[in-house]
Amino acid sequence: MLHTRVIPPAEGAYPYPLLIKRLLLSGVRYEKNREIVYRDHSRYSYQMLNERICRLAGALTAAGVKAGDTVAVMDWDSHRYLECMFAIPMIGAVIHTINVRLSPEQILFTMNHAEDKLVLVNSEFVPLYNAIAGQLTTVEKTLLLTDTDGAHADLPNLVGEYEALLAAASSHYQFEDFDENSVATTFYTTGTTGNPKGVYFTHRQLVLHTMAVATIMGSVEGMLGGDKVYMPITPMFHVHAWGVPYAATMLGAKQVYPGRYDPELLVELWQKEKVTFSHCVPTIMQMVLNAKAAQNMDFTGWHIIIGGSSLNRSLYEAAKAKGIQLSAAYGMSETGPLVSVAHLNDDLMAASEDERTAYRIKAGAPGVLVEAAIVDGEGNFLPSDGETQGELVLRAPWLSEGYYREPEKGAELWAGGWLHTGDVATLDSMGGIDIRDRIKDVIKTGGEWVSSLQLEDLCSRHPGVREVAVVGIADPQWGERPFALLVAREGHVLDAKILKEHLKPFVEQGHINKWAIPSQIALVTEIPKTSVGKLDKKQIRQNILEWQGSNSAFLSTL
Amino acid sequence: MLHTRVIPPAEGAYPYPLLIKRLLLSGVRYEKNREIVYRDHSRYSYQMLNERICRLAGALTAAGVKAGDTVAVMDWDSHRYLECMFAIPMIGAVIHTINVRLSPEQILFTMNHAEDKLVLVNSEFVPLYNAIAGQLTTVEKTLLLTDTDGAHADLPNLVGEYEALLAAASSHYQFEDFDENSVATTFYTTGTTGNPKGVYFTHRQLVLHTMAVATIMGSVEGMLGGDKVYMPITPMFHVHAWGVPYAATMLGAKQVYPGRYDPELLVELWQKEKVTFSHCVPTIMQMVLNAKAAQNMDFTGWHIIIGGSSLNRSLYEAAKAKGIQLSAAYGMSETGPLVSVAHLNDDLMAASEDERTAYRIKAGAPGVLVEAAIVDGEGNFLPSDGETQGELVLRAPWLSEGYYREPEKGAELWAGGWLHTGDVATLDSMGGIDIRDRIKDVIKTGGEWVSSLQLEDLCSRHPGVREVAVVGIADPQWGERPFALLVAREGHVLDAKILKEHLKPFVEQGHINKWAIPSQIALVTEIPKTSVGKLDKKQIRQNILEWQGSNSAFLSTL
Repeated sequence: MLHTRVIPPAEGAYPYPLLIKRLLLSGVRYEKNREIVYRDHSRYSYQMLNERICRLAGALTAAGVKAGDTVAVMDWDSHRYLECMFAIPMIGAVIHTINVRLSPEQILFTMNHAEDKLVLVNSEFVPLYNAIAGQLTTVEKTLLLTDTDGAHADLPNLVGEYEALLAAASSHYQFEDFDENSVATTFYTTGTTGNPKGVYFTHRQLVLHTMAVATIMGSVEGMLGGDKVYMPITPMFHVHAWGVPYAATMLGAKQVYPGRYDPELLVELWQKEKVTFSHCVPTIMQMVLNAKAAQNMDFTGWHIIIGGSSLNRSLYEAAKAKGIQLSAAYGMSETGPLVSVAHLNDDLMAASEDERTAYRIKAGAPGVLVEAAIVDGEGNFLPSDGETQGELVLRAPWLSEGYYREPEKGAELWAGGWLHTGDVATLDSMGGIDIRDRIKDVIKTGGEWVSSLQLEDLCSRHPGVREVAVVGIADPQWGERPFALLVAREGHVLDAKILKEHLKPFVEQGHINKWAIPSQIALVTEIPKTSVGKLDKKQIRQNILEWQGSNSAFLSTL
Repeated sequence: MLHTRVIPPAEGAYPYPLLIKRLLLSGVRYEKNREIVYRDHSRYSYQMLNERICRLAGALTAAGVKAGDTVAVMDWDSHRYLECMFAIPMIGAVIHTINVRLSPEQILFTMNHAEDKLVLVNSEFVPLYNAIAGQLTTVEKTLLLTDTDGAHADLPNLVGEYEALLAAASSHYQFEDFDENSVATTFYTTGTTGNPKGVYFTHRQLVLHTMAVATIMGSVEGMLGGDKVYMPITPMFHVHAWGVPYAATMLGAKQVYPGRYDPELLVELWQKEKVTFSHCVPTIMQMVLNAKAAQNMDFTGWHIIIGGSSLNRSLYEAAKAKGIQLSAAYGMSETGPLVSVAHLNDDLMAASEDERTAYRIKAGAPGVLVEAAIVDGEGNFLPSDGETQGELVLRAPWLSEGYYREPEKGAELWAGGWLHTGDVATLDSMGGIDIRDRIKDVIKTGGEWVSSLQLEDLCSRHPGVREVAVVGIADPQWGERPFALLVAREGHVLDAKILKEHLKPFVEQGHINKWAIPSQIALVTEIPKTSVGKLDKKQIRQNILEWQGSNSAFLSTL
């Protein structure tokens, strides 16, 4: 270690730990009349937001919550969620944002594993909560959230209803300082094997992530700023709605929370509240474009970041035709999540429309303070030539430092001092990331690596294909063979031979090798998805094995 | 202290210290073809910037510079200065940016106090350097900077010439990690009494300051971003050109360094390089507007931040008439410097042109992560009512934690755990700062506090006044009495009686009380200024006492 000069601060110098409460210094004060909107249910100013955060902190403290405790939230995306994202960490507690789309067994597992002490439950989730309440090992109290009169909901150990408790609490709260490395938030990520794993983020990490979000989405792209209107369409339980609510609050931007994702409502809110900035997964984007209310709408001025799954060109162009500027972004639960947003640099600004689109739908280049590299299976660095594939590894000041109470899995995540994303990617000379596949989804056939994502993209270009998933299935001769699961468009016929004919030109043009053509496909009406809307390849593989075992009628073989 | 949850990182988790080298991860990589321009002398890409920083680090290391050493720079604003701002701290050393406008005695003092070990000297400063070289107690080596062929300049212990050393060094350098609290930069601030004091900033502080600059000037105002063109007109020795070069580099913006501030050259560079963003003190702004080349120029699209001294309405409007958008900002050497920029919030966007101007020329509201308050002489907090005056005190993650080797002065700066700015201000309910005066310049007369800045503003509204300074002069009856130093415009006559007649209406309208009218003025051809162009009130008071002693002809008494 270098012997640099470190000087003890002058007597009295304030050490300024990076705490979440500091994100309330600018926007709340300077844009105090800007609004926080929750559907047609609630609408109030930033000044009120600040007051309500204080009241919530008081109510939680009165309910016995102490620093270091975990407080869980089961709610749709609302102003209350935003208030919890501030108040809970600001009193030194940890907010556990429960993924309400998990199975009851998984939710139960995460709540016991996170050692939740108090749970805020939306009245709509009371039946779900009560179904698992008997097996919760650490929860002592519950608090009711309701949009209607749910005051009589049957919750065990109920402290009270949210609005009533806030009304009874003081509008002032003295938030103490503490170690910036204190855990502030936790939530669980579901892998394809084993139990959900708890990622966690400290105050320091979230403040730095927030500054990076503001910088990247603001000064780099101009999407986010105090004068913008923000509506998240990514659940708040999932990596804090990608961290944007913290940044939007710091900057004092108007925020619109849509609750559940009814596409008609989203379009209505967009129009009524003059939304300029959102983020979502491709599936939701498609739903919004398909909404009845969207059909005659010109969405010009709406900038949307797409993450979670890869953004394809047809969705990009469909959105563009309606005035929406999409930009792909890359990140994951473990990364806070911001790694990159596909904004255009100087050279790309001058490039053709086609090249610009090609870049906008890829993952973009790492944002400020983010270091990215690709490595082979032994951790050796590979060249950034836009061709060589390797596992994407990262360093940034806001990456989860492990998994809660899972030291081995944490050490695996950080093997060699870099966070392993589990994604196969190429890096180009300007840092641009192109995600090729999940490592576990890459199809190893005949000594070659075939990207399942690329095959899905090529299959989806057939006019008869509405949805597609490609997985590798074990094969004694080739190691693995690609298998395609297809949903046909109405009025179209598909079989393995038709797909082969469709893919042949791509083999001839050198995009894929001939081993990449699936020799067996299945025609289905629906493709299994995970709780966050991604293709559930684990389930897909299981289904295929079952069908193959029973020689199902779904199957079509060359 | 609260017992929050602090979890040791997983084995192998990278701790990510906030180091200046990390600012080179985004812009340098992603905007590698953007340019760094130095007058008509040099022009190269970001990719080359990165390479040259590595070469400089290698050359300094080869010259014996070690972590913890202080390396001083005497240069005009150049690409070399930018390279030094990165390379020197990146090897763990401390860059001392020498204020070349100080007197030789003061420069000598700062160099010995900072314990400079190696000095980079522009050939134009060789005579100045050699004049003090014999009294330097710590300097071991020198390094020559030159725009011409200065290779034969007579410098003692010369290591070599900058470009030759860079050419000889490797284009790669492995920058090690170290403690983020290591000192990275130091420079000296000149008070009105005593020796210059050394403020200093750590890597952590500068990274956080850079993120805040990017956020405030980017996402809040849209002035700074990867697609903007930045030309500083504030010396790089002075608080790192207000910290913007670090932010511009992080974002990958084109940068234009003008060397010395020849107004004709500045206008020429603006036009040629398509500059969109600058910052300067009011004096320089006035010089640019007065430049011959500026007379028929439309500067639309140029956004300039004004700091250092207060921005008056006439300068604001003169700039606006030529298409330049000015925004006042507030900060000082001890604050990194960014505290606030006068951008418009939601309410102000809807206000009248007049109200918007009134706000744009004030200091603005504290930026992200900045906490501001006003206190009385005992440190009691005063109300933010836009009326009550008190000393402005601050907290932010990037304020100097003291003065180098001056623990008592450091403790005074941080009395009560807040940084004392020495400025008298009001705060309004949205946090807006209105600087009324320096504490030491406030005129205490007849039991009232009279702002010398306000008096200067009112005096300057007389058409015959070209420049004005007001100071308090001791008076046996009133404690102090205001004294005005005036420079008359050609063709105008001024005396104490004319000034009194001019000020009377402001007394009648309640802007000032009648004791505020100076009973004695002096007519001069020039007003003493400090090395950074501010009114030198210490010198002014001295002059007045001398004139009063000699009953000088300059004086005009009521």
